[in-house]
Amino acid sequence: MLIHQVYFWLNDPQSIDDRDQLKKGLESLLTIETIKSGYIGIPASTPPREVVDHSFAFSYQTTFENMNDHEVYQNHIVHLRFVEDCEHLWDRVQVYDYSLTD
Amino acid sequence: MLIHQVYFWLNDPQSIDDRDQLKKGLESLLTIETIKSGYIGIPASTPPREVVDHSFAFSYQTTFENMNDHEVYQNHIVHLRFVEDCEHLWDRVQVYDYSLTD
Repeated sequence: MLIHQVYFWLNDPQSIDDRDQLKKGLESLLTIETIKSGYIGIPASTPPREVVDHSFAFSYQTTFENMNDHEVYQNHIVHLRFVEDCEHLWDRVQVYDYSLTD
Repeated sequence: MLIHQVYFWLNDPQSIDDRDQLKKGLESLLTIETIKSGYIGIPASTPPREVVDHSFAFSYQTTFENMNDHEVYQNHIVHLRFVEDCEHLWDRVQVYDYSLTD
C-alpha cells in the first residue's frame, strides 16, 4: 500500500473563505476513483513541543493500492483542476509518500 | 480521533544497524496500549517532485481515541525509554498532530 500524505500552509491563514475553498478542493480530490481511502485533517490541540508543527492549515492523506493508481490520481483531470483552482491559496505544500514496512 | 504523524531523519542514513535499531524502537512504541492503530513506513518510490520529501528514514503514524490516550502514550515508560535509547540515532524529528475534519 502507498500512503500519500500532504500538508498545506495558506498564504492568508486568517481568511475563512480561503480555508473553505481549499477544503472544498481537497474534498473534490477524494472523489478520484483510484483512491483506496482518504481524509482531511486540521492541527490537533496537542501541547506545543519543539518537534511538533501545528502551523499548517490542512493535512490530507490518501492511500493507493499501488503506484499505478497513484499515477492515475496525479494526472487525473480533477487533480489538475484542483491545482489550477487552488494553488493561489497556498504558501507551501509538503508531501511525504511512503510504503508500509513488513 | 487524533492522528500523530512523525518523520525521522537519521544522523547516519547509510548505517543499516542504526536503521534496524530505530525500527525496533518504533516497533516497541506500537505496543503501548492506548494506541488505537499504528504503522511504520519508509519512503515510497514515487517520482521526484519539488514538493515531495523522500529524504526521511521512517514515517511513523499512530491514532488515538482522544487527547488523554495521547498524553498517556507520551508519558509512558516505553515511550520515554524509546527516546532515551534512540535519540542519538536521529538528526531530525518532525511531528504533525491532527484531527479529522467533519
